[in-house]
Amino acid sequence: MTWSLSVALAERAYPIHIGTGLIGDRDLYQPHLSSSQVMIVTNETVGPLYRDAVLGALEGYQVAEVVLPDGEQFKTLEVWNRIFDALLQARFGRDCTLIALGGGVVGDMAGFAAACYQRGVGFIQVPTTLLAQVDSSVGGKTGINHPAGKNMIGAFHQPRAVIADTATLATLPQRELSAGLAEVIKYGLIRDDAFLSWLEAHMAELLARDPDAIAYVIRRSCEIKAEIVAADEHEAGQRALLNLGHTFGHAIETASGYGAWLHGEAVGVGMCLAADLSMRLGWMTDTDLARVRRLVTSAGLPTAAPADLTPEQFMEHMSVDKKIQDGRLRLVLMRYPGEALVTADIDPDLLYATLAVASE
Amino acid sequence: MTWSLSVALAERAYPIHIGTGLIGDRDLYQPHLSSSQVMIVTNETVGPLYRDAVLGALEGYQVAEVVLPDGEQFKTLEVWNRIFDALLQARFGRDCTLIALGGGVVGDMAGFAAACYQRGVGFIQVPTTLLAQVDSSVGGKTGINHPAGKNMIGAFHQPRAVIADTATLATLPQRELSAGLAEVIKYGLIRDDAFLSWLEAHMAELLARDPDAIAYVIRRSCEIKAEIVAADEHEAGQRALLNLGHTFGHAIETASGYGAWLHGEAVGVGMCLAADLSMRLGWMTDTDLARVRRLVTSAGLPTAAPADLTPEQFMEHMSVDKKIQDGRLRLVLMRYPGEALVTADIDPDLLYATLAVASE
Repeated sequence: MTWSLSVALAERAYPIHIGTGLIGDRDLYQPHLSSSQVMIVTNETVGPLYRDAVLGALEGYQVAEVVLPDGEQFKTLEVWNRIFDALLQARFGRDCTLIALGGGVVGDMAGFAAACYQRGVGFIQVPTTLLAQVDSSVGGKTGINHPAGKNMIGAFHQPRAVIADTATLATLPQRELSAGLAEVIKYGLIRDDAFLSWLEAHMAELLARDPDAIAYVIRRSCEIKAEIVAADEHEAGQRALLNLGHTFGHAIETASGYGAWLHGEAVGVGMCLAADLSMRLGWMTDTDLARVRRLVTSAGLPTAAPADLTPEQFMEHMSVDKKIQDGRLRLVLMRYPGEALVTADIDPDLLYATLAVASE
Repeated sequence: MTWSLSVALAERAYPIHIGTGLIGDRDLYQPHLSSSQVMIVTNETVGPLYRDAVLGALEGYQVAEVVLPDGEQFKTLEVWNRIFDALLQARFGRDCTLIALGGGVVGDMAGFAAACYQRGVGFIQVPTTLLAQVDSSVGGKTGINHPAGKNMIGAFHQPRAVIADTATLATLPQRELSAGLAEVIKYGLIRDDAFLSWLEAHMAELLARDPDAIAYVIRRSCEIKAEIVAADEHEAGQRALLNLGHTFGHAIETASGYGAWLHGEAVGVGMCLAADLSMRLGWMTDTDLARVRRLVTSAGLPTAAPADLTPEQFMEHMSVDKKIQDGRLRLVLMRYPGEALVTADIDPDLLYATLAVASE
């Protein structure tokens, strides 16, 4: 069964299709291809598994392919440029379409290449990881990393469609499944306490990849994300809530060298730190904090930052966060589980205290 | 005297200020700076001449500077990345503003960096060449070159303001002045026969840098460009007319190695080739063609392509043009001097005939 919803963005509105076996469904691609020229952007791991299915759906099109190395450490300017090499090699025009076949790294790079090739071409997201299906493929944030900061170079560029085939999760390593669950938990923490309770009750089924449970969390996550993105496409306001745990998490990823931590793992720790600081600010209770840490742990995720990351280093890496305004750090914190807020009003001593116990 | 006009793009509308001594006028910058963080992007040639004037206008702001090498051959991914290095080094946030101080290359690279830094920050164009003042600083086309094609990687990103100080043209090499006049002639050829006649009558004054004559052509060029851009920001239709001579010209630039030809020089030849093909198609007369070539020559520009560029090589380089649709080359040609059109209906034999005499 296919379940579809729409990201309501006027002339940039697009569908998200969620279901089993969608990856080979020609009808889901066809309405979104602007000419016969189609470039599949994938990586060494995902490409061999699913390229034939995608190719099957694109019979009669002029399809080319570029295969990138797999991992966050390759989300660089140099690797990104290979997509342009391939597009120009194939002589593709401004009416071509890119298909991002892979996880968040592939989606971010292919989407950013689509944003910039000949000043903008269309692209379709075909996410094959849980993290990409619940989060990164939806909403049009694309980009690459700079050695000094995650996702510092990028664009808002909405896909023409998202095709989330849940069958692709069968080949996903358990560590990546857990990383995806971090973003799922995030949606509960920022605005849906009932969903949070559901996750607490069904985490074992999710880890066992029960198809109904997985399908449900993808749907609910995409619903929340689509709603927030439709209300605030370019993050002038509430969209920043989707960054719960990300300022801390990006610091961990940058400090550890991209690729050492999975993005979702770093976000898991980041949410625990956001909860810790929210408690120190007097908003969350000890019980709330314990609940967040328990849920993150239950998803198979770490709750502690690397032991060698000092508070000073944390602050250094957090000082290039995209939410900074007028030189002031802003953080997404929680009033209580199920309601997040963005604040710049942070007592530096309390933040330091949180960072000082980050590896505990 | 300052002369101002507006590019009417609703919430992205912005002013173009044209006049003498504007570069140090604080009041022209201030309304467009979103925070105290300002990054001047310039090059080795222009920076030393004008940075102090700009700095004077920005007293009290936190100003950083990045100085790029000078020339089209440096409009690359690697050099572009230095702007991000500088922005992150300075810890600049999403509310910073870039100032592009220089010619078209600096404007294109700084504008594209502004489009992508933290997914988009503001920028101000301070063009210091005639070409940048009459053309490239207005309209929001930004980007960099790929070895296989000019401006293949880029974005539409409108500046917050254009500050064209005509006094900066005093230091412009004569070759660059001529290159700028190519784009001026272009405006006449695509939609203003009266302006074309004016240019024929006043070319000597322009080459002698008569301030009134120069100020007039900048104003008239910006008027025409602002009108076309406001009607078709993303080049879905008539904006393509602004590319008269550019498909041929880009092929010359790419084939010769970026930097060997100035962009305006290549466009000058390109306009002659467009006129030649327009004549072969039966639209323009021999007299019209001779008029175009005479005007281009009178501006101190070449009318012939490099002798070693074969028609086959021309076609190869033209095959990655951004105006290609459904794999078909589209060219901007002329009905007569003063009216251009875009067409894909081109007899290949006639095109070959034009390319065969391109170096004559």
